[in-house]
Amino acid sequence: MGMVGGGNDAFIGSIHRKAFNMDGLIELSCGALSINPEIAKESGKDLFLPEERIYLTYDEMIKKESELPAEKRIDFVTIVTPNFAHFAPAIMALDHGFNVVIEKPMTFTLEEAKELKKKVDETGLQLCLTHTYSGYPMVKQARQMVQSGALGKPRKIVVEYFQGWLSKLSEREGYISGLKITRLSADLNIMVKGRALDDDGSVLLKFENEVSGVLMASQVAAGEENNLKIRIYGEKGSIEWMQHEPNTLIVKWLDEPTQILRAGSNYTKALSTFATNNCRTPGGHPEGYLEAFANIYRNFALTLLSKLEGKEPTKEMLDFPGVDDGIRGMAFIENVVASGNSNEKWTEYVV
Amino acid sequence: MGMVGGGNDAFIGSIHRKAFNMDGLIELSCGALSINPEIAKESGKDLFLPEERIYLTYDEMIKKESELPAEKRIDFVTIVTPNFAHFAPAIMALDHGFNVVIEKPMTFTLEEAKELKKKVDETGLQLCLTHTYSGYPMVKQARQMVQSGALGKPRKIVVEYFQGWLSKLSEREGYISGLKITRLSADLNIMVKGRALDDDGSVLLKFENEVSGVLMASQVAAGEENNLKIRIYGEKGSIEWMQHEPNTLIVKWLDEPTQILRAGSNYTKALSTFATNNCRTPGGHPEGYLEAFANIYRNFALTLLSKLEGKEPTKEMLDFPGVDDGIRGMAFIENVVASGNSNEKWTEYVV
Amino acid sequence: MGMVGGGNDAFIGSIHRKAFNMDGLIELSCGALSINPEIAKESGKDLFLPEERIYLTYDEMIKKESELPAEKRIDFVTIVTPNFAHFAPAIMALDHGFNVVIEKPMTFTLEEAKELKKKVDETGLQLCLTHTYSGYPMVKQARQMVQSGALGKPRKIVVEYFQGWLSKLSEREGYISGLKITRLSADLNIMVKGRALDDDGSVLLKFENEVSGVLMASQVAAGEENNLKIRIYGEKGSIEWMQHEPNTLIVKWLDEPTQILRAGSNYTKALSTFATNNCRTPGGHPEGYLEAFANIYRNFALTLLSKLEGKEPTKEMLDFPGVDDGIRGMAFIENVVASGNSNEKWTEYVV
Amino acid sequence: MGMVGGGNDAFIGSIHRKAFNMDGLIELSCGALSINPEIAKESGKDLFLPEERIYLTYDEMIKKESELPAEKRIDFVTIVTPNFAHFAPAIMALDHGFNVVIEKPMTFTLEEAKELKKKVDETGLQLCLTHTYSGYPMVKQARQMVQSGALGKPRKIVVEYFQGWLSKLSEREGYISGLKITRLSADLNIMVKGRALDDDGSVLLKFENEVSGVLMASQVAAGEENNLKIRIYGEKGSIEWMQHEPNTLIVKWLDEPTQILRAGSNYTKALSTFATNNCRTPGGHPEGYLEAFANIYRNFALTLLSKLEGKEPTKEMLDFPGVDDGIRGMAFIENVVASGNSNEKWTEYVV
Repeated sequence: MGMVGGGNDAFIGSIHRKAFNMDGLIELSCGALSINPEIAKESGKDLFLPEERIYLTYDEMIKKESELPAEKRIDFVTIVTPNFAHFAPAIMALDHGFNVVIEKPMTFTLEEAKELKKKVDETGLQLCLTHTYSGYPMVKQARQMVQSGALGKPRKIVVEYFQGWLSKLSEREGYISGLKITRLSADLNIMVKGRALDDDGSVLLKFENEVSGVLMASQVAAGEENNLKIRIYGEKGSIEWMQHEPNTLIVKWLDEPTQILRAGSNYTKALSTFATNNCRTPGGHPEGYLEAFANIYRNFALTLLSKLEGKEPTKEMLDFPGVDDGIRGMAFIENVVASGNSNEKWTEYVV
Repeated sequence: MGMVGGGNDAFIGSIHRKAFNMDGLIELSCGALSINPEIAKESGKDLFLPEERIYLTYDEMIKKESELPAEKRIDFVTIVTPNFAHFAPAIMALDHGFNVVIEKPMTFTLEEAKELKKKVDETGLQLCLTHTYSGYPMVKQARQMVQSGALGKPRKIVVEYFQGWLSKLSEREGYISGLKITRLSADLNIMVKGRALDDDGSVLLKFENEVSGVLMASQVAAGEENNLKIRIYGEKGSIEWMQHEPNTLIVKWLDEPTQILRAGSNYTKALSTFATNNCRTPGGHPEGYLEAFANIYRNFALTLLSKLEGKEPTKEMLDFPGVDDGIRGMAFIENVVASGNSNEKWTEYVV
Repeated sequence: MGMVGGGNDAFIGSIHRKAFNMDGLIELSCGALSINPEIAKESGKDLFLPEERIYLTYDEMIKKESELPAEKRIDFVTIVTPNFAHFAPAIMALDHGFNVVIEKPMTFTLEEAKELKKKVDETGLQLCLTHTYSGYPMVKQARQMVQSGALGKPRKIVVEYFQGWLSKLSEREGYISGLKITRLSADLNIMVKGRALDDDGSVLLKFENEVSGVLMASQVAAGEENNLKIRIYGEKGSIEWMQHEPNTLIVKWLDEPTQILRAGSNYTKALSTFATNNCRTPGGHPEGYLEAFANIYRNFALTLLSKLEGKEPTKEMLDFPGVDDGIRGMAFIENVVASGNSNEKWTEYVV
Repeated sequence: MGMVGGGNDAFIGSIHRKAFNMDGLIELSCGALSINPEIAKESGKDLFLPEERIYLTYDEMIKKESELPAEKRIDFVTIVTPNFAHFAPAIMALDHGFNVVIEKPMTFTLEEAKELKKKVDETGLQLCLTHTYSGYPMVKQARQMVQSGALGKPRKIVVEYFQGWLSKLSEREGYISGLKITRLSADLNIMVKGRALDDDGSVLLKFENEVSGVLMASQVAAGEENNLKIRIYGEKGSIEWMQHEPNTLIVKWLDEPTQILRAGSNYTKALSTFATNNCRTPGGHPEGYLEAFANIYRNFALTLLSKLEGKEPTKEMLDFPGVDDGIRGMAFIENVVASGNSNEKWTEYVV
């Protein structure tokens, strides 16, 4: 694979490398690692790339790599440039037959996101979006429990993300419940004087099937530590998950004792294969953020390998965020901003 | 003291008795314990009341008791009748010179609440409202920390009460922060078909000084257990308290490790006297709901005793909810309902 | 009832009063509250005792009270004097037909404890020992689960009591498991120079049925807060309880998710009646140390009432610690000290 | 680097690979991955090793690799064979100038361990032992706090490892405190009939400076999940760490509120560089077992790189377990077994 962005001057590039290195399925073969040629070269050397595959622009990289013989050519491109510079290299990579991984948010605007989807559909290639949150085994377990109906009809969804930006919540809200938002009411605030972006926001939500929800995000929550917490209440039971302690899923029941489900455990009534496939160690060995990130790459790589072998990828392999999630994320942000600027109590959710 | 309501057929009466019995400062001397004369009589006997002080109506009780010689006469009346029947006996008791304790909510309407305040002001007597929440030592500690500025200027308030009614939140929102609401936006829902009352509600709030807030209450949170949780975020630090584990106050700091403050502890930098005065046991001996309830009665009794002795009650004695808290609670409910029925995004808060 | 000891100069007396006042079943009618006559008199007045029933010695109190007519006479005596002064008033009270409540430890020596048992057996009266720990609803639940075999054959018992004296553990070890100790190996230390008593101790235990155990107590555990924690591991599952959060019982299963049982909950598979009878409030209203203490008095009072009415007390009523628990506690201490002084690895447990 | 053992049939090999892959500092270049030639070959291919560097025996691998030119030759050998087969390849690798990483336990006997130390001392090469526990940032923080005296003189050490073997505790006891054991008393049991190894053990310990300790390990703790927990109590404060939630270090103080230290945090009074150097992500992004494992490899690799560049490695680089830790671990096991078989209460600790 090859990287666009992610040189020595970019923190996120090294996170991606730790994640895709973890399982030995993916090898960094080339890169256009910075728009600064010095940094691009230095970073390439530091990563032990062969000189001829250290490129200075993504344009050059995609062209040259597409001309290599199949067995040498990369299978996909990871784009970790700033947000506004995701779209162009993604389109170009797809046009040249490369699958694509994109750091979140997928694009700069919803419009770009929709165009990107068209391109993905046309080419039949895979696009993977690194919404880390969906890579945690117990988030996958939560999703299976909610969507299989084990908790009964959902009634209420509460998401909080203290010491996080509201825009980051774009990746969270749909994955577990699978429900579509119909209306929303947003209160956005700039609390710290001088900040350009809203640093505090609360959103009341209505989902399909008369499910209601509350989302809260804040950068002014002193002492909180990137504290993402998700609760979904159903008719029979509810789930609670926190990024803080990601290997635990709390399941509360209407008439039964609360249960503590732990990643890596062997229960008589087993955890979902979506969860168990994404653990690397037995119960009691905590896994974390990098493992969740690595799960996204691993499932993406398994999907590509499966397709290379002419096989249909399994549902478990395909369990990574894709272009539709990217569109949903962009739409979410635009709808929240629109509602924040509106005097209407409820604004209709538009995609 | 004497009780109006709270006979054998009423759960809440026995809670009050456990609470006021705890410290040996208050003695039940008479009662009009039920509108059902049979139950009134039976309940009086079960509580070892002398026959002549088992009354069948509050009217009778207040009149007869007020005619007793001072040393035999009760000092106050506790009213634990249904909500709509709080107002009349409270007014009558005050008119006859008795101090009053009222089970929450204080009255049936905001108007009644305001009239009651007038009467309290006129008579100079004490009215105590059993907002239990304010009786917990660590809630008192939280209040002192917030209002003394130890956490810096408040920025955000989040209150959740899952498996509780929104109306119950009326007692919670103002105590710790002391801030006034200026505007609000309420989303009220009936989730369980057939219910007459909203069983799920979320409210966005604006307080004075540009503090924002979110309140959530729900009766449809399967598996939650009367889970009241309060968080206040300030510029320098924040506090978190849960009724579940009431002896713990979590204090998070911007640049310091999170601290776990525990009721009954002796720290170098001591807990507030408002907290320490309301603990009965040394650290490590958990206190609970009944002790918090008893603290309200204890402080009320100490206030009455102090006044009887002609002394000014201390601030710590006066730390129990009064008629202003009752008005605030009633106003809160009316404002929430008005906003819930409105299509305006924000409705002004009216008291 | 009447109290021996527990005047204004004694903390523990006020704890007993809060506990027995709570449920309105017990009334303080007389007392020999201090060996200091001044304090005895003052304390009696402060507690609103009639002057003629404020005694200066227990001797006087027991004699005079036993001469009163049955309907005026007290039913039991509570003894809260220093440890060495439990035995004499207890024997005398029983001899005069009074039931007895004794603050722990029951006596000063094992020998006294055995004599007391003889007296109890002879008189057929009730003796109640205020081992508070056994009054917590979830400790009772734990006991039922262990002794009913729900967790399978017990294998291992771990008790820790940090910031507590080893001697206090005497009340803990037998209640839940019901198992008898057969051998032990104790390591006792004085860690803080100048202390007269061992302030740190660890004991390896062998119980009947090849169950093994570890007990740890320490007064040198800086920052711990009277932290009592009990774990019992069985073949199929295990329980964990902490005084810190007494309304929670953690049940871990071999092949199932861990369960969180909460006092006051209504589960399909209900909590034991031994637990539910000892809750005063619905789930979510935390109860604590004083309620556990009050449960002991309540069950004792219900037992006396039942006997007064000529009825056999139920098992649930009789669920308070008695003279056998007192003997076990005294024997435990003596065995631990003997083992601590021995060079033998294992010493046989002697009662 | 090259691996001895760790083929497709061995779980632990893949854990090592995930760990050393994580930071991009280490590349697998050759291997003698199994004593079964078929598996050795297949595994080598699966790991994309060049055919000529897939060896069938460690003997062959070490010889051939030592004959390669310096720039192609591996820098170290990782040995993940069964315990009894650690010693021979380790000695041979050292003899041929290769540094060595060994999966725990270091050797099969204490004697082997001592011989290995001689060889390490002779050759001046690095030996690294993968005691994972010491790789957690908050364990490093704990160590710094204890050894710097921040908690005052240590008094008591409690280690529990439920659902783990006592022998695994060999790696735990010395790292944080740095104290030497002087005497011990072990109780070892086989609880599950038919097991060959003791599946339950408790050990009373005496350390230098009159510190006392308790170690407990058990394979019969139903429902526990590899639950390693360490507490060290000092005169002024104490620390508590659990593998379960490895990013948290609880610090309890004699006269101050308990503090929750979190990995990745920026406190005014900063965490130790030993801790901060071993975090890959900012606070709030949980790291786990594989990251702790990777820290050992990373520090080992940084040490080798530093030496290659002719520089003295920093203390922080050298913070990985070495041959002395291996000796201590083996000695611990032998002493525990000896005490378990002895009738003496205390046996002297022999190294």
